[in-house]
Amino acid sequence: MQLFIGNKNYSTWSLRAWYLMSKFNVIFTEKQLVLDTPEFYETLKNSFAVQKVPALVDGDLQVWDSLAICEYINDAYLSNTAWPIDTAQRATARSLSAEMHTGFMALRNEMPMNIRATRLIELSAAAKKDISRIDEIFSQQQRSYPNAWLFGEFSIADAMYAPVVLRLKTYQISLSALAEHYCQHVLSCPTLQQWITEALKETDIVACDEAGVDVT
Amino acid sequence: MQLFIGNKNYSTWSLRAWYLMSKFNVIFTEKQLVLDTPEFYETLKNSFAVQKVPALVDGDLQVWDSLAICEYINDAYLSNTAWPIDTAQRATARSLSAEMHTGFMALRNEMPMNIRATRLIELSAAAKKDISRIDEIFSQQQRSYPNAWLFGEFSIADAMYAPVVLRLKTYQISLSALAEHYCQHVLSCPTLQQWITEALKETDIVACDEAGVDVT
Repeated sequence: MQLFIGNKNYSTWSLRAWYLMSKFNVIFTEKQLVLDTPEFYETLKNSFAVQKVPALVDGDLQVWDSLAICEYINDAYLSNTAWPIDTAQRATARSLSAEMHTGFMALRNEMPMNIRATRLIELSAAAKKDISRIDEIFSQQQRSYPNAWLFGEFSIADAMYAPVVLRLKTYQISLSALAEHYCQHVLSCPTLQQWITEALKETDIVACDEAGVDVT
Repeated sequence: MQLFIGNKNYSTWSLRAWYLMSKFNVIFTEKQLVLDTPEFYETLKNSFAVQKVPALVDGDLQVWDSLAICEYINDAYLSNTAWPIDTAQRATARSLSAEMHTGFMALRNEMPMNIRATRLIELSAAAKKDISRIDEIFSQQQRSYPNAWLFGEFSIADAMYAPVVLRLKTYQISLSALAEHYCQHVLSCPTLQQWITEALKETDIVACDEAGVDVT
């Protein structure tokens, strides 16, 4: 099984699929393509229906989109253990994951993931509203599962929100104490730390993902 | 179980959840809120974490987002029969559904669903590219399942693409013969016809969803 991903410093959707698969010890070969290069588009165009990362190849099967890849891995390799066991909790986890999948546009546009940077940034009212919703989600789940993952055990929902935790760190956003507990829990995960270590070694610059004023 | 939806003429995400539930004869009460009215926002604000339709209430549980609602219904009420039986086909159906969930932005912006209208419209290159991808998806699946649903039997993927079929009709977009076969199959579905009939009775106007030049 091969997982095509972009730059670890920048590619949030790649991180989501990679994190889920790595955290659950699913065996795969990582194929990294540098974003915004001719090789990136050429490779995807020759092999995939959709020219985006992440993209998964499992024998004859192609799976594209981070959420669909997570659902496929859960379904085909993890006997449904990548979602909470309880049906209602699973529905909430899927609602939160879908909300991330289509929403938080202001936050995503104004605060690109940029793991190796530490930045200050002026945010729009819409981005502040997104952050407030993120804080609400993290704190609410921490009240149910203190110092743990969103639904106690690690699930696809945590993979979906991991890039947001990294964005909040880069742009030094203050959260409520409970939401901060969740972020610390995520950042202390060795699997995520492995991705971060590899991101820090990268040197390619994607100009459109460089936002804010450097404060390092 | 209560499903909150918006105007049947305009609300594509509402249609997706409603269609899945109705087609599979899941019993629910429909709660319609007219888009862009104070009552719409007030009702959702008082009852839901996210102020968007569709939103599902099942006892104490709230499920939001069309895809999460479809997954929940499939999981809790349909014993997984709302996705294809084959694991690889299920992965493809989920990839296509996720692609719809986050993509086709130009098509979605330029061709708002407006069931009761027949319009001519000038499309951007990006919207034309979206239509070409839609044509590719529909024709490819028709080659595997002639004159049938995307994966033979009706699945969540068909619910996700149904609003696109209605948009293509409103703006009189020409497709390849195979893609057209799929559209005709969808449009002949009595459950979808029920939604259309109810949409045609609505009189509220949502100005931002009125695009193109009337040719009726």
